[in-house]
Amino acid sequence: MNLRLNCDMGESFGIWKMGYDEEIMPYIDMANLACGFHASDAVTMNKSVILAKKYNVLIGAHPAYQDLVGFGRRSIRCSLEEIKSIVLYQIGALQGFCKAHGTSISYVKPHGALYNDMMKDENIFKAVLSAISSFDKNIKLMILSGPKNEIYHHTALFYGINLLYEVFADRNYNEDGTLVSRMNENAVIKDELEVAQRVTTLKDKGYILSVNSQRLFLEADSLCIHGDNEKAFEFIKLLRKALL
Amino acid sequence: MNLRLNCDMGESFGIWKMGYDEEIMPYIDMANLACGFHASDAVTMNKSVILAKKYNVLIGAHPAYQDLVGFGRRSIRCSLEEIKSIVLYQIGALQGFCKAHGTSISYVKPHGALYNDMMKDENIFKAVLSAISSFDKNIKLMILSGPKNEIYHHTALFYGINLLYEVFADRNYNEDGTLVSRMNENAVIKDELEVAQRVTTLKDKGYILSVNSQRLFLEADSLCIHGDNEKAFEFIKLLRKALL
Amino acid sequence: MNLRLNCDMGESFGIWKMGYDEEIMPYIDMANLACGFHASDAVTMNKSVILAKKYNVLIGAHPAYQDLVGFGRRSIRCSLEEIKSIVLYQIGALQGFCKAHGTSISYVKPHGALYNDMMKDENIFKAVLSAISSFDKNIKLMILSGPKNEIYHHTALFYGINLLYEVFADRNYNEDGTLVSRMNENAVIKDELEVAQRVTTLKDKGYILSVNSQRLFLEADSLCIHGDNEKAFEFIKLLRKALL
Amino acid sequence: MNLRLNCDMGESFGIWKMGYDEEIMPYIDMANLACGFHASDAVTMNKSVILAKKYNVLIGAHPAYQDLVGFGRRSIRCSLEEIKSIVLYQIGALQGFCKAHGTSISYVKPHGALYNDMMKDENIFKAVLSAISSFDKNIKLMILSGPKNEIYHHTALFYGINLLYEVFADRNYNEDGTLVSRMNENAVIKDELEVAQRVTTLKDKGYILSVNSQRLFLEADSLCIHGDNEKAFEFIKLLRKALL
Repeated sequence: MNLRLNCDMGESFGIWKMGYDEEIMPYIDMANLACGFHASDAVTMNKSVILAKKYNVLIGAHPAYQDLVGFGRRSIRCSLEEIKSIVLYQIGALQGFCKAHGTSISYVKPHGALYNDMMKDENIFKAVLSAISSFDKNIKLMILSGPKNEIYHHTALFYGINLLYEVFADRNYNEDGTLVSRMNENAVIKDELEVAQRVTTLKDKGYILSVNSQRLFLEADSLCIHGDNEKAFEFIKLLRKALL
Repeated sequence: MNLRLNCDMGESFGIWKMGYDEEIMPYIDMANLACGFHASDAVTMNKSVILAKKYNVLIGAHPAYQDLVGFGRRSIRCSLEEIKSIVLYQIGALQGFCKAHGTSISYVKPHGALYNDMMKDENIFKAVLSAISSFDKNIKLMILSGPKNEIYHHTALFYGINLLYEVFADRNYNEDGTLVSRMNENAVIKDELEVAQRVTTLKDKGYILSVNSQRLFLEADSLCIHGDNEKAFEFIKLLRKALL
Repeated sequence: MNLRLNCDMGESFGIWKMGYDEEIMPYIDMANLACGFHASDAVTMNKSVILAKKYNVLIGAHPAYQDLVGFGRRSIRCSLEEIKSIVLYQIGALQGFCKAHGTSISYVKPHGALYNDMMKDENIFKAVLSAISSFDKNIKLMILSGPKNEIYHHTALFYGINLLYEVFADRNYNEDGTLVSRMNENAVIKDELEVAQRVTTLKDKGYILSVNSQRLFLEADSLCIHGDNEKAFEFIKLLRKALL
Repeated sequence: MNLRLNCDMGESFGIWKMGYDEEIMPYIDMANLACGFHASDAVTMNKSVILAKKYNVLIGAHPAYQDLVGFGRRSIRCSLEEIKSIVLYQIGALQGFCKAHGTSISYVKPHGALYNDMMKDENIFKAVLSAISSFDKNIKLMILSGPKNEIYHHTALFYGINLLYEVFADRNYNEDGTLVSRMNENAVIKDELEVAQRVTTLKDKGYILSVNSQRLFLEADSLCIHGDNEKAFEFIKLLRKALL
């Protein structure tokens, strides 16, 4: 299995810095670049595209609800027309910078509340697909790998869009392929070596162990990692090694 | 001379409506579409592109300083990097909607204070050119026709960009080709028939009469008209006739 | 019963005008003034306070979720701390203009989605109360009159806040005092004379007829009316007369 | 001379953190609190007021041009009505949080470009004075101490407002009391011990040495310091000691 590391990048805003983009970019494969609605701004987007291109990192659009102060983490009850339009707007804006630097968007991964809402609400999922499909059918949509991949896949095919499945390396999964809720203590795996081990198993054998120690075969094109703290940086290098 | 009518369109924002886009679009040739920084929003941009395409109206990006509450009319002292980036962002966003509807941006006409600053400051002019040039050299830049067209033209050529020259149909010009300042009473020509007459003369003979009655030969690809009031609508139809 | 007319006012934004504030202000008793989060801006708020004061209209703060493009009509999943803070911010900002003109806020009426969420979610209701209470216990909170007035009242008392109950003059009510859902055809009463008759009955006898013709005694301090179209203006004058 | 330390505080925005407010607050006398136009948000303002009150730090409103992405550092060509209104809006909003916590605004210090424009343009200075004066004449206005203090003072008196004069501890001054331009290499004094020495001299003897070693007697109510980096923190403690 070819597992790529994806990471949210370009989430500074104006004078406020976030993340260690310069340090982390060389170690990842796919950069989810904020498009100005939950983070980033025109100057930051320009720099982020340049940085991603420099390290041959695939560029993903990371569109969100329009909510800088809430960092796109608060669900906004939008109409489907609004969702389709804000996705198109953000993809277009990012593509502007890509075009200026001779590169282009490879995939779309919605951010925060929009990502969660898309996974829960079929109509929102379709609105996102519709936006991408009308823009460029070669752009893929990244979703959370889970027990209903097949259903998502068929819906996406209807729009002519291919999906990318991502797995959260540091989250525990139930036997049915859903995430262990964050309400539970063991939702997140804190032992980094254990995480690295899981990643190796997933890469080599195609499964991870569910929370009750069953083999869970999960489609996985990419692993989602976080780069907003210094510790994360060390962890990313560890995963990078595990994936070699 | 082939004179096209250009008009600022798509300047509603959210629930607030502006202009008579539906009524006016059939009568103009070039629609300067707001890109969300001084007016418009994702849903409005989508509708505006659909409307322009329906009437075969050329689509121009109308980028501005980021200032909704000031409608882009207040100069913001931006760095050149900021100007280049905000122009790219807005062009890209609009192009997203164009692509989704099988059309594309033909030209860029900066809005309000950004337009004025571009005409006054060579470095801002170059920043705008640089943004367009990096995005797509087939997109033209519309500027105010005046005595220094040649200089602007040479600068634009250096960036591989062609210019479009616009004339203000209802403004008086000095003998040297500059606009009569709005400080003066006779800056604006209020008699609509006189304006229509000027437009006919410009189209047929290539000149307008300056404020002191001299023939002023002005390069003119387009006439700028306003569509934000009902009276304007009648005026546009009058000009439309004058240009047939 | 002393029934006052309340109306959303001051909902222009920058260059975009909304409503007929100048014409309507003389005919209403209470002006719900937008505070910049769903509509209005600093200049508009200043003018709105001057206008309300000129006609001795009580000033109400009309705080909303931070969502200009959605006009505060889209629910945003905020934390209670966020809700309390955005209400305080908006009340304070409006009070700034009131203080500058020698007047002050009489009541708070949340706008749009925040109003609906407050009526549905006790914790949001408490967050709003808490904000007002910490700012000034003499300021009242306006809510929708209904079958649970007593419960709201007791909660408000705990925060030291008095409530104002408003009735929608043009909406049909169920026998239990809830609004007939907008899903139903007869949710809104379109016959203006019928509405005026209902208002007279409510004022003189304290009840309105429910959708199944039962007498429904509703606490009512104020009637909510809309002023965003010319027809509404005539209607307001009609209600004004009915209330004399 | 009683010299107080003032520092820009509360300049985080949403998820983005800025400064070391918790660490620095105990060491300063006056906190210039952002009001949401160049930085901060409702939740952050609430926390900042609580923090300032905890350490008995005087609260100053720090209003700015409306420009989050530019951090209020870019001049926006506003009308005087706009400037007066945005200052009132921001003062009011901050006062809301102060009132909720039983404290109040002591002074106003405009931020960034608005501060610079106020010092350069008499009409902007008057617009700021007018806003404060209409709100509460007990609130003072902080300006940059310089050779024209007397002129500013007389203008302020006309509005019933008292001024506070601040000195930049780490900037070199010309003999005439103006700042050495940042164009010059020696604009900023980098040696911290030298700065502390200057502060002690200013406090004890009322003068600082100009760049050409003349005694420059400067009115000084407060010293402006910066708290946005860790090094600054040590420096503040040094100045704190120098002022004991």
